[in-house]
Amino acid sequence: MDTLLIEKATHGLTVTIHRPKQRNSINAQLVLDLHHLLDQAERDPICRCIVLQGESGFFCTGMDFNEVIQMNSSTTTSSLFSKKYMELLRRFTTTPKIVISLVEGQVLAGGVGIAAASDIVIGNQQAQFCLSEALWGLLPACVTPFLIRRIGYQKAYFMTLTTETLNASEAHRIGLIDKLTEQPHESLRQITLRLKRIHEETTHDLKAYFRKMWIITDAMEAEAISELDRLMMKPQVRANIKNFIEKQTFPWENGENI
Amino acid sequence: MDTLLIEKATHGLTVTIHRPKQRNSINAQLVLDLHHLLDQAERDPICRCIVLQGESGFFCTGMDFNEVIQMNSSTTTSSLFSKKYMELLRRFTTTPKIVISLVEGQVLAGGVGIAAASDIVIGNQQAQFCLSEALWGLLPACVTPFLIRRIGYQKAYFMTLTTETLNASEAHRIGLIDKLTEQPHESLRQITLRLKRIHEETTHDLKAYFRKMWIITDAMEAEAISELDRLMMKPQVRANIKNFIEKQTFPWENGENI
Amino acid sequence: MDTLLIEKATHGLTVTIHRPKQRNSINAQLVLDLHHLLDQAERDPICRCIVLQGESGFFCTGMDFNEVIQMNSSTTTSSLFSKKYMELLRRFTTTPKIVISLVEGQVLAGGVGIAAASDIVIGNQQAQFCLSEALWGLLPACVTPFLIRRIGYQKAYFMTLTTETLNASEAHRIGLIDKLTEQPHESLRQITLRLKRIHEETTHDLKAYFRKMWIITDAMEAEAISELDRLMMKPQVRANIKNFIEKQTFPWENGENI
Repeated sequence: MDTLLIEKATHGLTVTIHRPKQRNSINAQLVLDLHHLLDQAERDPICRCIVLQGESGFFCTGMDFNEVIQMNSSTTTSSLFSKKYMELLRRFTTTPKIVISLVEGQVLAGGVGIAAASDIVIGNQQAQFCLSEALWGLLPACVTPFLIRRIGYQKAYFMTLTTETLNASEAHRIGLIDKLTEQPHESLRQITLRLKRIHEETTHDLKAYFRKMWIITDAMEAEAISELDRLMMKPQVRANIKNFIEKQTFPWENGENI
Repeated sequence: MDTLLIEKATHGLTVTIHRPKQRNSINAQLVLDLHHLLDQAERDPICRCIVLQGESGFFCTGMDFNEVIQMNSSTTTSSLFSKKYMELLRRFTTTPKIVISLVEGQVLAGGVGIAAASDIVIGNQQAQFCLSEALWGLLPACVTPFLIRRIGYQKAYFMTLTTETLNASEAHRIGLIDKLTEQPHESLRQITLRLKRIHEETTHDLKAYFRKMWIITDAMEAEAISELDRLMMKPQVRANIKNFIEKQTFPWENGENI
Repeated sequence: MDTLLIEKATHGLTVTIHRPKQRNSINAQLVLDLHHLLDQAERDPICRCIVLQGESGFFCTGMDFNEVIQMNSSTTTSSLFSKKYMELLRRFTTTPKIVISLVEGQVLAGGVGIAAASDIVIGNQQAQFCLSEALWGLLPACVTPFLIRRIGYQKAYFMTLTTETLNASEAHRIGLIDKLTEQPHESLRQITLRLKRIHEETTHDLKAYFRKMWIITDAMEAEAISELDRLMMKPQVRANIKNFIEKQTFPWENGENI
C-alpha cells in the first residue's frame, strides 16, 4: 500500500505509517489504506494483533493540509474524508483484532484519534501528544468521543482548549499511554504473547460488550462527522489553512483571532 | 458590584470574590453578581478570559448559612437560589469566554462547583477542597454533575461521602486542579497568552460540542436543582444549620446523626 | 452463616469472607449469605458501615469453577447465580449502609466486582487485582459497569483485555483502591469514625442521587446478566473450565485459543 509498510510478525501485523515527506500526516489515501489493512487482517485467522507505528520521530500528525485545500471546491470529498476517518476509529474499537499503537514520536490532531481509539497504547519518552485543531478554528470532533472514553472529559477538554503539548510522562499519567517504557518493543513482545491466550471470539465479544457499557452511540459518531464537515467548510478556517500553506503564517499572526 | 472586585487585564477580566467577613461564602447576591459579570464580559469582544480568584485564604466557601436560615419561610427564595446557582455553573461551561479559577486557598461545598465547572483550574499549594454538605444532611447536588465530569464518578462520590479535605497535591492528582504551581500568576500569564490564539467563535463551538459528547443534560440539571430544594426544606437540615449558627454546635454533637 | 464470619464492631459489622479451602471464591451460597447480611444490617439502625475483608491472602477470587461445572445441566441455576450476583453489586451501591472493602490480598474476577461496587476500598501493599475472565472465554460482565464507574472506561477495558495483575500501587494510582496504607485497620478506624457523622438518611439520599448522575441503568444491568449467562452456556467455555478442573490445563495449552 502507498502509505503503509506492512510486515508479518508473530503477533499478526506490524504496520508503519509511511508518509515521510508529509511527516506522517493523514490524507484520504492513508485512511483508505488503513481500512484495507483491517479488511486484510480480518480475513486472516492467524493474525491476532495489529501494531501501528510511525517513523522518523512522527507517529502520526493530523490532516494533510495540502489535501484539505484541494478539497476546496467539493464538499463531497471533504465529507467522505470525515466519514471514512470516523469509521476507521470506530472500526479499531469493534474489530476482533487487537489494535496496538506503538508511539515513539509526535502525535498530532487526528493522529491522537488513532492512538486514543487503539485498544492499547505503548509509548516511550519520545512520545508527545497535541491537539492543535482549535488554533485553526477547527475541533478534534471525531477524536473527542474516543479521547474522552480513554482519558476522561476534563483532560480531553483541556487538551483541546489549551492546544498544549503533553510529554510522555504526562500522557502516561492521564492514561493516553497505557504502558510507558524505554523498551517498547520488549513490552510489546510480552503483551502480545499474553494476548495470544485470548480467543479471537472473546476479543470480539469484549469489544461489543464494552461498547454497550459506554456512552458512545451511532448518533454521537454522526454528530462528530457533521461537526467536522461544518467546520471544514467555514471560509475563515479555509483561509487560515491556506495562509499557513502559502505564507507559513498562523491565524493569530494575521490578527484574525483578535 | 457588591460581592466582586473587578479589574481589567490583558486577558480580559480578573474577578476577586470579595465577601471577607463571610469567608467568601455564596449568597444570592454573589450568584447574581457573577451572572452580571458574565453578561458584561459577553458584551465585550475584547475580553477573552475571566479569571476568578478569592482572597485572604478563601477561594470560595459554600452557601452562606445565615442567608439560608432567612430563606426559612419562603420556598420561592430558596428555589430561586438553587436555580440561579445551577444556571451559573452551566453558564461557565457554555459561555464563549474562558473561565479560569485561580485557587490559592480553601474551596468548600458550593465553591467546589465554581472551580469544577471552570474551564481551567490553576492552583498553588495553599489550595484545598472539601465537600462538607453531607455533614448537614445536604448533598452537593448542583456540584455533582460538573465534578463527576471533571474528576470521574468515584472521586466525586468519595469526596461527598467522606467529607474529607483534599490538599493541593491530591487535588491535582485527581484532576480538580489542572495546573499546580508555586507561580500561579506566571502560569496564568502563559496560559492566557496561549488562549488568545483561539478565536472566540472556536471557544463557543468547542463548549457546545463537548456538551454533546458528555452525559449532562437539561433534565439532569433540573434534577439537581430539585434535589437541592428538597433537601434545603427538610426540617432536620434547617435545624442542623440553625443550631450551628446560634450555638456553634455540629449535628453529630447533638446526637442527631446517631 | 456458612461462608461468612460476622463480628459486631463500633462502626457496624466486620464481615470476613470465609471459604478458605476454595481461596474465597464466589459460590451461590456466598452470594446468598451476603444478601442475608445486608438484610440483617438494614434492619439494624445502629449499624452504619459493613466492612468486608478476606483471609489468608485472599480477599475474594472469582466464581467457584467446581460449582459452575455442576450447574452444567441447568440453565436456571446459572442464570439465578448471575442475577443474584448482579443484584448484590447493585445493592452495595443503593443500601443506606456504607460498604467498605478492606483488601489485604488477592482479588480476582468476580471478586473485583465486590471491591469495585463498594463505597470505599482500603488496601495495603498485599492487595492485587486481576480480571482473568477472558482467558476462559468469559467476560467480567457484571463487574464492568461498576469498574468503569470507579476507574474509567480505558482502565477497565485494559484490565479485561490484558488479564494483567495490578499491584497495590497501580491499583491506587488508577482508583481501584481509595486509601492505600500500611495501617489499613487504623485507616479504617479513622474513616468510620468520620462516617458516623453522616446521618443514615443522608447516605441513602446520596446513593440514590449519584445513581441518577451516572450512566448505569436497569437496562444496562439486565444486559450484563444476560451476557454472562450467554457466555456461561457456551460449550467451549464449559470445556475450558472442565479441563482446568480435571486436568489443570489452561485453554491456551490445549491449543484452543490458537
